[in-house]
Amino acid sequence: MPLWKVYHPADAFSADDKRELSRRITALYRNLPKFYVGVVFQEVAADSFYVGGEPNGNFVRIWIDHIARTLPTPEMRTWWIGQCDEALAPFVRDRGLDWEFHIDETAFDLWSIQGYRPPLPDSEDEKRWRRENRPSPPTAQ
Amino acid sequence: MPLWKVYHPADAFSADDKRELSRRITALYRNLPKFYVGVVFQEVAADSFYVGGEPNGNFVRIWIDHIARTLPTPEMRTWWIGQCDEALAPFVRDRGLDWEFHIDETAFDLWSIQGYRPPLPDSEDEKRWRRENRPSPPTAQ
Amino acid sequence: MPLWKVYHPADAFSADDKRELSRRITALYRNLPKFYVGVVFQEVAADSFYVGGEPNGNFVRIWIDHIARTLPTPEMRTWWIGQCDEALAPFVRDRGLDWEFHIDETAFDLWSIQGYRPPLPDSEDEKRWRRENRPSPPTAQ
Repeated sequence: MPLWKVYHPADAFSADDKRELSRRITALYRNLPKFYVGVVFQEVAADSFYVGGEPNGNFVRIWIDHIARTLPTPEMRTWWIGQCDEALAPFVRDRGLDWEFHIDETAFDLWSIQGYRPPLPDSEDEKRWRRENRPSPPTAQ
Repeated sequence: MPLWKVYHPADAFSADDKRELSRRITALYRNLPKFYVGVVFQEVAADSFYVGGEPNGNFVRIWIDHIARTLPTPEMRTWWIGQCDEALAPFVRDRGLDWEFHIDETAFDLWSIQGYRPPLPDSEDEKRWRRENRPSPPTAQ
Repeated sequence: MPLWKVYHPADAFSADDKRELSRRITALYRNLPKFYVGVVFQEVAADSFYVGGEPNGNFVRIWIDHIARTLPTPEMRTWWIGQCDEALAPFVRDRGLDWEFHIDETAFDLWSIQGYRPPLPDSEDEKRWRRENRPSPPTAQ
């Protein structure tokens, strides 16, 4: 459900970096089945990456879609943004990279995994998906 | 209008596969001008594609934006998700690939094709666009 | 805030083209700090780019997220779409390329730059960010 698209400079991250960062991102969503969390890394050459009209070879731009949960209150949103920044810090801020991210929230019922509509938040089915870390046929409506 | 972004493992799909899958996707939108339906395929190496914090070389992740139409009722959404899964099945499920997709619905009036605001749903102008399979100047408001 | 993703045919744009086009895009957002405006160019091979079920090597498809501002009225939306088309024209229409774009508006408070929540529209903090063309600690709530 959360899908993170990470646009980053060429060679900014090794395979180990990407794995570790994706684990930090996955850990943010501790209430969700782990397999809900997708992260796609994409290198962008400096001459294809512009900030304010200038080519930029030092910028990490992250676009996130949230589907399984929404963040209903300003307080939760502030808290969440801080959590994300903390997860990212060792791989962006601490390396002198510039970064920006934004999150879109999309409709829960326009989402499908492996041919199944994902179970409702905190339902028994979702708990099973989380426990088994894989999708399986729903047992309830 | 519908824009499908298909992130897929390297070599998962041949050019013929991609053409055929894009035709199946286009056929889903039988009420729309065919040229509304865009599909972009993008290979992602296993070490840039993480699910639940683990690299994944077997995953097809599809992100869809709907612009020309919305799916207003739960029943239509359920029906639509099933249609999409059926269109995808021969190229994902039947090949043993894992897959997930989600749809965002964006604003009709923040959309432009070839310098034209697309005509309203089911208008005479839209019917002409569909018949001719190309955009042309609007004849009405 | 605005993030433009430009999918384009291989070799459609030189590095100079991309820089100039990104400057034209940046100029559209004259009330915003320049560094808010991100543009990512991505080449797509004709056999990965389908319109209406056919491969297309002449198509520029642009997907835009707006975060810092919304376009609240139909009149403003019409005006804005025209501004975008005008900015794009020399690099798409005038070169015989086909093109389409759509804009999504996402939540202001699910956005972070360089560890800061961006300041409110037209606030003193935003004016400073714009004047200095860089993010800095907020001085007010």
